[in-house]
Amino acid sequence: MDITQFVAGSIGQWKSQRSAHHMIFGHFEAVRSEIEIVALTIDNPAVIELCQAYNFDPSQADSPFQMSWEGESDWDESEVLKGSTVLVPIPDPNLPDRGQLLRDRGYAETIPAAAQYHITADDVFVLTTEYDRAAAEERIWFVNPNLRFRVATIKTSDGTGVVTASFSSELRSLAKT
Amino acid sequence: MDITQFVAGSIGQWKSQRSAHHMIFGHFEAVRSEIEIVALTIDNPAVIELCQAYNFDPSQADSPFQMSWEGESDWDESEVLKGSTVLVPIPDPNLPDRGQLLRDRGYAETIPAAAQYHITADDVFVLTTEYDRAAAEERIWFVNPNLRFRVATIKTSDGTGVVTASFSSELRSLAKT
Repeated sequence: MDITQFVAGSIGQWKSQRSAHHMIFGHFEAVRSEIEIVALTIDNPAVIELCQAYNFDPSQADSPFQMSWEGESDWDESEVLKGSTVLVPIPDPNLPDRGQLLRDRGYAETIPAAAQYHITADDVFVLTTEYDRAAAEERIWFVNPNLRFRVATIKTSDGTGVVTASFSSELRSLAKT
Repeated sequence: MDITQFVAGSIGQWKSQRSAHHMIFGHFEAVRSEIEIVALTIDNPAVIELCQAYNFDPSQADSPFQMSWEGESDWDESEVLKGSTVLVPIPDPNLPDRGQLLRDRGYAETIPAAAQYHITADDVFVLTTEYDRAAAEERIWFVNPNLRFRVATIKTSDGTGVVTASFSSELRSLAKT
């Protein structure tokens, strides 16, 4: 599986159940959300702008997409978790199974973060992002074309401690159009 | 990583948080448990008996172990989930990264089930078990020597539907002795 196939398989609407394990106190958190992933063309202004911000030529982009989510956590049911981000894969020209993933906002902090991705021989998409005070790793794979799993860990930036581990099961909620 | 290293890394006591996602109704379940994994020798009577039940010679066994657990679910806090099982890996003599895992009881049904395992290039231990009416897959990996993740899926036996997906984070709770 390459990045083009991975993104193509991800396009659509997904119903997500996410469980977070807060390791230090052993707490559970449950989040339900709807996720929409839409393909963007490389001449989309948001894609061009993002490439320029990271000093890449838009022609180096492969399969950019926009991800939007809306959900709620059992920790605070009054708060609606809602957001949207543009993501632009820039494959390594020499190593087709790896590259960078540009995005217009990070998950854990608000500064833009370029993440490193690679796809394992087992078709797991692995994304690592370094932040100022933390590092995130996500492992995403398809169980079948209509079910994605995502395991995310947030570690302290020195890599010693895992602070949060979370698991999302994402079930396709509408037929792929 | 081979089966010997995988089992050696697993010996000890673990504090487990498990989140199950029941896919059809979108339910969450949270289970907390203590897991203890103890190495057994191949001359242990339980190991010999299990090998004989599956028509293997005990000399084919590598790193047998006993796993015990005790926990409770937020679905029924009065019920104590408790059990113990003996597991015996039988590596394939020709393919060192795969083999069978014998155990004296299955997770989903009570008949003994021989499971197939393999270890990916990415050091994920993948276990698949076929039952009469269901199939289970577990993927277990170490995030670091003191943290294991386990993603399990229960599918209908024809493979079409995933019924339950679960994620366990298992944190070493005592120094390895």
